[in-house]
Amino acid sequence: MYYMLMIDEAADQIPGIADIISARQRISGETRLTPVISDPQFNEKLGCELWLKCENLQRTGAFKFRGASNAIALLDESGRAGDVATHSSGNHGAALALAASTHKRRSWVVMPEDSVKTKVEAVRRNGGEIIFCPPTQQDREKGLADLVARGCIPIPPYDHRDIICGQGTTVLEMCEQCPELDIVLTPVGGGGLISGCAIAARALIPDVRVMGAEPEGAADTALSLSLGKRVDQFPVDTIADGLRAIVGVLNFAIIRDNVSRVITVGESEIIDAMALVWQYFRMLIEPSSATVIAAILASPDDFSGKRVGAIISGGNVDLNHLPFLPEN
Amino acid sequence: MYYMLMIDEAADQIPGIADIISARQRISGETRLTPVISDPQFNEKLGCELWLKCENLQRTGAFKFRGASNAIALLDESGRAGDVATHSSGNHGAALALAASTHKRRSWVVMPEDSVKTKVEAVRRNGGEIIFCPPTQQDREKGLADLVARGCIPIPPYDHRDIICGQGTTVLEMCEQCPELDIVLTPVGGGGLISGCAIAARALIPDVRVMGAEPEGAADTALSLSLGKRVDQFPVDTIADGLRAIVGVLNFAIIRDNVSRVITVGESEIIDAMALVWQYFRMLIEPSSATVIAAILASPDDFSGKRVGAIISGGNVDLNHLPFLPEN
Repeated sequence: MYYMLMIDEAADQIPGIADIISARQRISGETRLTPVISDPQFNEKLGCELWLKCENLQRTGAFKFRGASNAIALLDESGRAGDVATHSSGNHGAALALAASTHKRRSWVVMPEDSVKTKVEAVRRNGGEIIFCPPTQQDREKGLADLVARGCIPIPPYDHRDIICGQGTTVLEMCEQCPELDIVLTPVGGGGLISGCAIAARALIPDVRVMGAEPEGAADTALSLSLGKRVDQFPVDTIADGLRAIVGVLNFAIIRDNVSRVITVGESEIIDAMALVWQYFRMLIEPSSATVIAAILASPDDFSGKRVGAIISGGNVDLNHLPFLPEN
Repeated sequence: MYYMLMIDEAADQIPGIADIISARQRISGETRLTPVISDPQFNEKLGCELWLKCENLQRTGAFKFRGASNAIALLDESGRAGDVATHSSGNHGAALALAASTHKRRSWVVMPEDSVKTKVEAVRRNGGEIIFCPPTQQDREKGLADLVARGCIPIPPYDHRDIICGQGTTVLEMCEQCPELDIVLTPVGGGGLISGCAIAARALIPDVRVMGAEPEGAADTALSLSLGKRVDQFPVDTIADGLRAIVGVLNFAIIRDNVSRVITVGESEIIDAMALVWQYFRMLIEPSSATVIAAILASPDDFSGKRVGAIISGGNVDLNHLPFLPEN
């Protein structure tokens, strides 16, 4: 009963293609038009025609900047003044910080004390203020609640209509850059990227299949789909740090209706895929991003002979710890 | 007298814009249309509007594939059959190997025994046969001479009309991707890239200035320009392994007449520039490529307020030895 209520509430919030097109108009002066890239030798290896949409080359090194920009631009449009805040151990924090700076707002990011140094630096470099907290979900939420009590506007990382619309702009660009895709494939974490992309792809590309890639060690979305309802707990254990979140309520409602399949991949497959992208494209991508390549290799029948648009979600790796190098 | 003779011979070989446009038609089905990319925060730091042409994302990880493709396609057009050969410790070898495979030819690359492992692997992966030799210029040339004696067609890395035309296609693309440039800036090693780019830029962009960036430890071109004649020796010592060659005869003749200035940069400036490109763009670029960023920072008055197209020449770095990390 509780579950149905949540989905019903979610239904009112589900954006349409017009909302994503508006988001693009709103943010395209701030976001980078990231390239799509393909390689004939790699295509031969994979057995499909793969186009990579390089959000690793997006500002702040990840697609997250799209959603954050859209959310803050909408605050401006609605005349709502004030600082913005979030909790994040990863790419959303830096994205929010840069989007806020661009719109002359202050931003506050609650970060666990054990956050990776490069992520902390990224938030600071983009003008965000950091509040460190003990590394538990409870402490993160308490830290954010304190900021909200002081008047900050919370900007969640994925389970929000404005964020979903911003992330969906990735597919609007990709449709123009490599038309007539058979499949759109994205990583799945909290579900912000895949839900926005699924709405855009299904509206604009005839007969498209939208598919997701998820680590076995964070396969809450695949499990939720197989159970027919969203699980809100999962024993998370994966190198793909960007995909450790549990899928959001609104996100799951969209995924359930618009995504054909979520393919799960193992840790060594993810690491091998990172190495392949370095080898064929000289791009360093996050483990989270590499899941899409791993998914094609793990499930070749789904992709054989198809024209596939896959989103490389981010490139924020720690250069001191590249998991595919023999030394590490 | 000898010098004048060489320049006169070179003059007959200097290509025009029509040759570079033909080269583009010849190779554009094989080369990747690499993106150009810019960042408002980085521009603010530099004091100019910088567009990076990302040849680090070219096939084989460097612009070298353009020239090799053009040279081999021209062999096909002229009906000249046979294996191709070169000596190379770097990117030209892998580029020639891939271009040859694409055109169903065998390729042979003479490599010094102490070549970096990743470069050896790149030649093999792209279908090239390797002949190892002792690490001296003499042994490299002898190795190549032996191959030529056995009937191989030599394809030089830079001092050749067909190679120069292929490299010049980089600027044809850049002119369309970011029009109205004030300055075109490239690294300078043997001079293949800058000479082709200078011919294209001066033909297509009104009032453009073409500038080069060269390490102080391999500043033979800057020295040659200041002396008014090409030097053929220089005590080379630089981390920028792609720029250690002495400028070619044909290349110098073109540079002398078409390049406004070659800016020299120090080793620590090159390393800092690599770190900046990683920070702002999440791209790992070779030290050779980083010279263009170092040149802008070293000589800001040349670039202030200008619209600058800079070519990032390659991304073939050894991930185990990134010079800008504190550990290294």
